[in-house]
Amino acid sequence: MPLNVIIIGAGFAGLWAARELSGAAVDVTVIDRNNYHTFLPLLYQIGAAEIEPEQIAYPVRSILRKRKCIRFVRSEVHGIDIDANCVKITGGTISYDYLIIAAGSVTNYFGIPGAEEFAFPLKTLDDGIILRNHILSCFETAVHEKDIYARRKLLTFSIIGGGPTGVEFAGALSELIRGALRRDYHALDFSEVRVLLLDAGSKLLPSFPEVLGDYTKRRLTAMGIEVMLNSQAQGIERSGIRLKSGAAIPSATVVWTAGVRGAAMLHDERIAKTDAGRIIVTDTLQVPGHPRVYVAGDLAVIDGNPLPMTAPVALQEGATAARNILRDIAGLSPAQLVYRDRGAMVTIGRNSAVAIIRRWKFKGFVAWAMWLVVHLMNLIGFRNRILVMINWAWNYFFFDRAVRLILPACCDNPCERPCVPASGKCREVQV
Amino acid sequence: MPLNVIIIGAGFAGLWAARELSGAAVDVTVIDRNNYHTFLPLLYQIGAAEIEPEQIAYPVRSILRKRKCIRFVRSEVHGIDIDANCVKITGGTISYDYLIIAAGSVTNYFGIPGAEEFAFPLKTLDDGIILRNHILSCFETAVHEKDIYARRKLLTFSIIGGGPTGVEFAGALSELIRGALRRDYHALDFSEVRVLLLDAGSKLLPSFPEVLGDYTKRRLTAMGIEVMLNSQAQGIERSGIRLKSGAAIPSATVVWTAGVRGAAMLHDERIAKTDAGRIIVTDTLQVPGHPRVYVAGDLAVIDGNPLPMTAPVALQEGATAARNILRDIAGLSPAQLVYRDRGAMVTIGRNSAVAIIRRWKFKGFVAWAMWLVVHLMNLIGFRNRILVMINWAWNYFFFDRAVRLILPACCDNPCERPCVPASGKCREVQV
Repeated sequence: MPLNVIIIGAGFAGLWAARELSGAAVDVTVIDRNNYHTFLPLLYQIGAAEIEPEQIAYPVRSILRKRKCIRFVRSEVHGIDIDANCVKITGGTISYDYLIIAAGSVTNYFGIPGAEEFAFPLKTLDDGIILRNHILSCFETAVHEKDIYARRKLLTFSIIGGGPTGVEFAGALSELIRGALRRDYHALDFSEVRVLLLDAGSKLLPSFPEVLGDYTKRRLTAMGIEVMLNSQAQGIERSGIRLKSGAAIPSATVVWTAGVRGAAMLHDERIAKTDAGRIIVTDTLQVPGHPRVYVAGDLAVIDGNPLPMTAPVALQEGATAARNILRDIAGLSPAQLVYRDRGAMVTIGRNSAVAIIRRWKFKGFVAWAMWLVVHLMNLIGFRNRILVMINWAWNYFFFDRAVRLILPACCDNPCERPCVPASGKCREVQV
Repeated sequence: MPLNVIIIGAGFAGLWAARELSGAAVDVTVIDRNNYHTFLPLLYQIGAAEIEPEQIAYPVRSILRKRKCIRFVRSEVHGIDIDANCVKITGGTISYDYLIIAAGSVTNYFGIPGAEEFAFPLKTLDDGIILRNHILSCFETAVHEKDIYARRKLLTFSIIGGGPTGVEFAGALSELIRGALRRDYHALDFSEVRVLLLDAGSKLLPSFPEVLGDYTKRRLTAMGIEVMLNSQAQGIERSGIRLKSGAAIPSATVVWTAGVRGAAMLHDERIAKTDAGRIIVTDTLQVPGHPRVYVAGDLAVIDGNPLPMTAPVALQEGATAARNILRDIAGLSPAQLVYRDRGAMVTIGRNSAVAIIRRWKFKGFVAWAMWLVVHLMNLIGFRNRILVMINWAWNYFFFDRAVRLILPACCDNPCERPCVPASGKCREVQV
């Protein structure tokens, strides 16, 4: 009887592991809470109403359709029993011979009071849709708001976190506002609209060379975004941000992109984790003491060699974990991860991006064109590539956004931060 | 000072009225609860995961952007004071000189017990998304369901109502199941999947010539859909349908397309309405005794000349109501509606549709090609036309559906009819 491999998570790490295992003499089960894989590098464009959610998501079953012996289970994972070799899912338990945990990361609020309750995360497809609905609702409400303080609060959009997601979202949001929304809302005075990008540190994109961070700051500032460095949030409230400096920023929209932590998966004090909840693994991606349990992607951190939490790392780790399982079955010892650095790139806005590939730095139009090509090529599904390309061309040539619907309408009230807990609440009510 | 015209509803009637009034010396306010116009003729394709919701919806502000003196208010309408000439909306009251009520229709459950609670309507964009999520969730649950009765219940999809919406949705759902889903769920035995189309009457498409109704029935049957005529529902339960005949149909999905009624708008016993809640108007579309109040679209029924509740009727009525307001301002008496019958068409499935235009009947490929052209041409927005065309071509040539995501994830539990009340619940919790 073939051995069982369970892969938790259908992100980049999980899918690349499954791909590596297909055709081998193992039974593979992929578990994910969603029935789709999300192309997270473009998630910020959902929040900024640039593309449709369906275009960066792809049904897992379609991806795995042609792979033999791979089955998909859509379920939450409620626990892992590392001694009994089984995974608890909704309505049952599945046992494994080998396990790859690729559950990824979740938003890290660092315990800032009010952040989880009042700030908008941008980490899942649902987050993106909720944020888009909220931003558009703020404009719909502001246009009828007579009180200038209330109106300005509705029109102040604060993004906390000067990393890639914060920068990309700030740029895209600014273009949405100065383009399509400015034409939609004649009655609004757009000098009242503010987009703020805050970071606790002293520079943007700290993982990039300083010259690119500086360029990014200049470009964002030229786009009308207020970049506030050395600004640490002390608390988030319904009405906005309180800074450590004592200043308060009234803002109906606080987007939190300041950090991530490992998804809660192995609740076992014998398993070593970092402060951010990432599981510490060997350079062969195995959990020390549990050679049949692998961790890959954002959730894994290699002892002594922490890699960035990016898609290229995740898919290389996923593939390596899978190959090590096959080596083990074949009686070989597992091989260590050979990480190939593919570089990194961040888009800022129209015709402007930064990229670093090996030692080469790029900025401006060249980096932007590279960014477009790389992201289009890597989107899963030929149809999605075409549709995203049409949307981008539309946005680019017409300075317009076609996707600005408040949809579904369950998220209605912009001042109340409505749907984020609501999606949880729907479930609470039903289960 | 220019006179004020309020238009309630940004559907076909409301938008065509606004278009007619643009450029005239009046101030126009369009009120709608959504910030988008929905192209309802293609709504069933949302439920069947054929196209993305964003592609049949278009922001009202974009549509009205170039029209002078038209302002848009996104709000619920809470009441109309026909004596004081004002409309109550969320957070205020707007007064009018002329009013066009184009609030459309809502699902009519005819008081069938359990229908409103357990059946899925298909009348708004949210309905379509919820239904899509539910159907896909049924398959995800069924694939792990060991009990054959429970599994068959999950895989039985019942559509109540043999009118255009019921027929179109049954056909599209059957193609989704026999195409993409059959390839996705190897583990399922697709002989267990049933699609039922029930109607209380003795034929399908009663508003069409009998020969076309018969053709439709043959086509649907050939596609594997069980057409059950003379089958009246006595009650809908969580577990399925109870028929008047005493039979019970276990079915986790009951879609209700059996009827519509006028949206509740004028709560005034002096205003005459039909049993289905439609407001009875003169042939000039005025409310008798209230010459400055017009009704257009599904909500209006002309005394002695009831017209079908379709998009072509709605937009002609909207335009006529608007022109009558301009005539009144110019001192002319209002003109009666001159209705031009554009014909009617219903698509059944791949290469097959029925159409009637004047006295000519069409069926099969010709009718289907006409249907495609007419619907593509009438979609608002060049970009939407391209995207829908790509999706249709994809579906057609690859027998596939790309849009089959369970999204947003707040609608999770297929057996519980989760999100329909949940979207309401979100609001309850917050307001």
